[in-house]
Amino acid sequence: MDEVDRSRAFLKDVKRIVLKVGTAVVTRNDGRIALGRLGALCEQLKELNSQGYEVILVSSGAVGLGRQRLRYRKLVNSSFADLQKPQVELDGKACAAVGQNCLMALYDTLFSQLDVSSAQLLVTDSDFRDRDFRKQLSDTVKSLLSLKVIPIFNENDAVSTRRAPYEDSSGIFWDNDSLAALLALELKADLLVLLSDVDGLYSGPPSDPRSKIIHTYIKEKHQSEITFGDKSRVGRGGMTAKVKAAVNAAYAGIPVVITSGYAPGNLSKVLEGQRVGTLFHQDAHFWSPVKEVDARGMALAARESSRRLQAMTSEERKRVLLDVADALEANVRLINVENEADVSAAQEAGYEKSLISRLALKPGKIKSLANSIRVLANMEDPIGRVLKRTQLAEGLVLEKTSSPLGVLLIVFESRPEALVQIASLAIRSGNGLLLKGGKEAKRSNAILHKIITGAIPDSVGGKLIGLVTSREEIPDLLKHDDVIDLVIPRGSNKLVSQVKNLTKIPVLGHADGICHVYIDKSANMDMAKRIAVDAKVDYPAACNAMETLLVHKDLKDTTEFNDLVVDLRAEGVTLYGGPRASSLLNIPQAYSFHHEYSSMSCTVEFVDDVHAAIDHIHEHGSAHTDCVIAEDLEVVDAFLGQVDSAAVFHNASPRFCDGARFGLGAEVGISTSRIHARGPVGVEGLLTTRWILRGNGQVVDGDKGVIYTHKDLPIEP
Amino acid sequence: MDEVDRSRAFLKDVKRIVLKVGTAVVTRNDGRIALGRLGALCEQLKELNSQGYEVILVSSGAVGLGRQRLRYRKLVNSSFADLQKPQVELDGKACAAVGQNCLMALYDTLFSQLDVSSAQLLVTDSDFRDRDFRKQLSDTVKSLLSLKVIPIFNENDAVSTRRAPYEDSSGIFWDNDSLAALLALELKADLLVLLSDVDGLYSGPPSDPRSKIIHTYIKEKHQSEITFGDKSRVGRGGMTAKVKAAVNAAYAGIPVVITSGYAPGNLSKVLEGQRVGTLFHQDAHFWSPVKEVDARGMALAARESSRRLQAMTSEERKRVLLDVADALEANVRLINVENEADVSAAQEAGYEKSLISRLALKPGKIKSLANSIRVLANMEDPIGRVLKRTQLAEGLVLEKTSSPLGVLLIVFESRPEALVQIASLAIRSGNGLLLKGGKEAKRSNAILHKIITGAIPDSVGGKLIGLVTSREEIPDLLKHDDVIDLVIPRGSNKLVSQVKNLTKIPVLGHADGICHVYIDKSANMDMAKRIAVDAKVDYPAACNAMETLLVHKDLKDTTEFNDLVVDLRAEGVTLYGGPRASSLLNIPQAYSFHHEYSSMSCTVEFVDDVHAAIDHIHEHGSAHTDCVIAEDLEVVDAFLGQVDSAAVFHNASPRFCDGARFGLGAEVGISTSRIHARGPVGVEGLLTTRWILRGNGQVVDGDKGVIYTHKDLPIEP
Repeated sequence: MDEVDRSRAFLKDVKRIVLKVGTAVVTRNDGRIALGRLGALCEQLKELNSQGYEVILVSSGAVGLGRQRLRYRKLVNSSFADLQKPQVELDGKACAAVGQNCLMALYDTLFSQLDVSSAQLLVTDSDFRDRDFRKQLSDTVKSLLSLKVIPIFNENDAVSTRRAPYEDSSGIFWDNDSLAALLALELKADLLVLLSDVDGLYSGPPSDPRSKIIHTYIKEKHQSEITFGDKSRVGRGGMTAKVKAAVNAAYAGIPVVITSGYAPGNLSKVLEGQRVGTLFHQDAHFWSPVKEVDARGMALAARESSRRLQAMTSEERKRVLLDVADALEANVRLINVENEADVSAAQEAGYEKSLISRLALKPGKIKSLANSIRVLANMEDPIGRVLKRTQLAEGLVLEKTSSPLGVLLIVFESRPEALVQIASLAIRSGNGLLLKGGKEAKRSNAILHKIITGAIPDSVGGKLIGLVTSREEIPDLLKHDDVIDLVIPRGSNKLVSQVKNLTKIPVLGHADGICHVYIDKSANMDMAKRIAVDAKVDYPAACNAMETLLVHKDLKDTTEFNDLVVDLRAEGVTLYGGPRASSLLNIPQAYSFHHEYSSMSCTVEFVDDVHAAIDHIHEHGSAHTDCVIAEDLEVVDAFLGQVDSAAVFHNASPRFCDGARFGLGAEVGISTSRIHARGPVGVEGLLTTRWILRGNGQVVDGDKGVIYTHKDLPIEP
Repeated sequence: MDEVDRSRAFLKDVKRIVLKVGTAVVTRNDGRIALGRLGALCEQLKELNSQGYEVILVSSGAVGLGRQRLRYRKLVNSSFADLQKPQVELDGKACAAVGQNCLMALYDTLFSQLDVSSAQLLVTDSDFRDRDFRKQLSDTVKSLLSLKVIPIFNENDAVSTRRAPYEDSSGIFWDNDSLAALLALELKADLLVLLSDVDGLYSGPPSDPRSKIIHTYIKEKHQSEITFGDKSRVGRGGMTAKVKAAVNAAYAGIPVVITSGYAPGNLSKVLEGQRVGTLFHQDAHFWSPVKEVDARGMALAARESSRRLQAMTSEERKRVLLDVADALEANVRLINVENEADVSAAQEAGYEKSLISRLALKPGKIKSLANSIRVLANMEDPIGRVLKRTQLAEGLVLEKTSSPLGVLLIVFESRPEALVQIASLAIRSGNGLLLKGGKEAKRSNAILHKIITGAIPDSVGGKLIGLVTSREEIPDLLKHDDVIDLVIPRGSNKLVSQVKNLTKIPVLGHADGICHVYIDKSANMDMAKRIAVDAKVDYPAACNAMETLLVHKDLKDTTEFNDLVVDLRAEGVTLYGGPRASSLLNIPQAYSFHHEYSSMSCTVEFVDDVHAAIDHIHEHGSAHTDCVIAEDLEVVDAFLGQVDSAAVFHNASPRFCDGARFGLGAEVGISTSRIHARGPVGVEGLLTTRWILRGNGQVVDGDKGVIYTHKDLPIEP
């Protein structure tokens, strides 16, 4: 999920960095040094220094530190009479002089603990008027850097003749942010980093959940959108100065990142090109598409549109699906052109053959997709069905009705037809949808999305189905558990696990498919052979393929079992054994019983009986699909009654566990969760219920308001 | 959730602390000072110092630091020829001498940044043989502490004549852990804290998810359970020494806490009495009940028992419920004695009357509970019901059947009868259960739990229903999303929100109940009056009580609406207005439209029409229960069709939204989640499904194995 932002790839080539550390990073709220933070920062700089980066530090914090020191000093030297007089504010220059000393002594101590040398450079803005000074400064810094010394800059406040810092923005520099920008230019840095106490520039106050972080600042776009200096919108005073300095430096050719100095490791993330903080770059407005996905906004818009879709008549919703089908057929050539472009790009990039074959839309595929959509359009409307009708009291009738979940987020890989299937299922079930496809199918997904949304009428709004194009936005989307109702990851186990770890939104899917086939001693062994081979060989990478074959111990020396082993091997299956089987069959020991091979391999183990098989499955399985091959009905009943998995089969291959084979129509996914939906999930997994109560003025009144009847009524009134 | 552990209440009275900081806290893996960590630690000590705590530090880390310093020095002074010779290990004494200097200089710098003075005290074990020395040491430390100076102790390694540290455990002290324990005794500290790099003492390697932290060490119990020095079990070498020192100190009367030096704020948590780290106390074995709840173990045992319950026949499960009912009735007197004890304790503690009335079991309550259980026992078995039956192909029949969810965690407040209701629901639905009741009902809950589990046959196992008695264990339980399937918090909004924030386990419940009543201009105003009053007044604190009254704008000047306002006020309801209503009705403005009063107050606002009402509800509501009072059928259809809440009512009071009133029998809770269950939830919310497929040898074989028929079959075969 920490994929690198491509527009930030250049950051990997950065060598010389000017790093400005703000007062809010250096000092705590009480004015004292924030030792933990500063220590961690020095440790980070030590790392960068050893890795060959040239770091130039601009550090604030001296004035505040000096003020605190002098106040204490004054107190110590005060007589009782002195203390009774009104206290005058301490002289800023004196504070700067004392504080600078403290700050440098501290940096020196900290860095020397880490075997790093640092140097102090105090400058005033008038210095920079002198060309010789600038030349000299550049030479000095260069030789310090070549000695791996970290130069630490600050304005020489104690002797500077400017009126007051932070006020006059007409000078050469007017605060440490502008000093850092100036130094980055003068010293030809590759990057300027401004460390703040917030994660970057936000569209509003960072504390407001509606504010979103701006990952890439586009002057043309954000200048008007964000009101700087307006405290209620940007929240922190210091951000205005930072943005100004950042824009100036960026347009003079130095890329800038504003990020938090509170999160250790942020600096390394920035230098790896991760999407951390706000990036300012002079070419940012050329970067296309500049995607600042407003995750929350997309989800809210999808929900709004889904409500409009839900308010339509069943006939109108059917029409939408038929229009989508027609639009797809009318644009087959366009779709194929884009799909072929994806396929060639994948071939050039040297992707695996299997991936390319999943990516390519076969001839006639669009036509068949359009036909499936028409079938979906003609099925009974799943929304607003009455599932239960009860008379609660005279004239008071309760209905439990089906209704859309709300907003779904689907993350899928490769196959572009999945987009069409999922989108049509979402329309059929009245849900809003956010889609994230694989990057290799980018152009196919974009055209399909465009055609489908183009066929949705304006009355629903164009945002029913949102297409998320960059993977980095997924963690953002997954945070909004109050506006997204269900996430369905369709892809590798890794994808499912990553999604589950990142979100509190319910996830429909399965991380593991460790399916068992248990062959009882009462089994018809011809059948057992056929099923075991199908279970493993039909599609070894599928989640419903057999990973473990459990065999009743009495079968171990039989010809029939021996034949089964021969058959599996003849098909190319590699066998690994549990402790008992590995020695008996002389095969290598399996690494773990909880292991999904997803290939032409499986584990074999002997068990004492059906109860031992059940215990084994409960202990090591993933509660996906487990099968018993047996003729003894007591064994069958025990297995079917007790195995606590989503699907439990008798004398049939686990490969039947699939929405289409189960006759559910389109499959949303297979769930090993116990909540909401379990096993293969069709449209009903995208629906929830709503309770509708119709009365004629009834009140509860301490349950004396009505006489309850609780009479079941027929579903059709 | 950060409730204080009562057995740790004494920690709030601690004043003098000996704090031992281990090498793993002071230095990084590369041997250099961990500046971030050490800085943060100094900041914490500064806080404690200002709060009046007397902190005595014992700091390791000097030897390692000196070794690193000397190595560097040696390198600098080496000739090329020197470097080619084999490098000899540096002398430990020299390292100690150099390192002690570095460490003290660093502490001095760090502390002086925070206006704290520190002092160095180097001791050897032979010093302590001298009684005068011990007296002098005690006096010196006392005067340092009175000056708010932090004494920093270390063994005077450079001049100590002991062979090597960490080897000889026969001396007076033999490492910094034992030195810290000795100092705590000599200096009469109230507490010894040993900072480590793990959270405390674990039952096994801390990296193993099955290891659990031991919050209170009981010598008798844990000495044998944990194998010290056995690397594979305890993980970190240093823990053996720490536990030894801790046991010695604790049995000499100084309480000890071992906790992590990596988490800032841990020290304050320990001093607040929070259950952080491992506590050693000489009286720990007297504390009863010493509950070290093994959250994971409890959940796994409950799941195991639930599987056995599920394997029983329907008749056997019914018998269990009937036995539970009989057992409760047979023990009425015992239950009442315990309940009366809870009630008196609550009265003495000065709890609110309403809480005490919820706590008390009214006469006849047990009898009526037992009768409800008998009703539940006699209802149709909800487990194993066939919900759908399909013929997939000739001889291949699929059934969708109901099955238990697995393990439920219920957190409830006050009412002890809730325990009985929930436990019987769990038995009826075949689920394992972990229960956490309110502490005020402790004795009632304990006796009810004992009676109920006593009535469950041994074949199910005694751990089907686990009672969690301390609130601090809840965060622990909530971590195990792989073994607990559903959490149901029953109590305040705060409780629900806290639970939701702490877990990835699905939560059934609702945090807010912001219910609306919309009065259309077509409303029968007599009915509107009756419903609005019932909606607010019947039970103002209920989640289904009205919080916002939306009124069609045309009604604002009518006598009928005026009467409604008069009626509400006559009942004692305080009205707050939205922007329009507050000026028109001259009432105070509501703080926010998203506000649950839970009292005799509500918000009133005028809206333009039903569409504006729907938008208002979507924007500000909590999707719980919303009502329309109208005679105009178009208005009614729009409202019932579009309002996207769990329950939507026409001409009826929102107070009807309740499991019992809906005729669902026992209510598990009311869910505003869209997943799994929505609105009032009965037993079916505790069930999931299992797919059972019966065949006679069918295989998939690339979908050529069978000819699919997908024929619906009748549910009863």
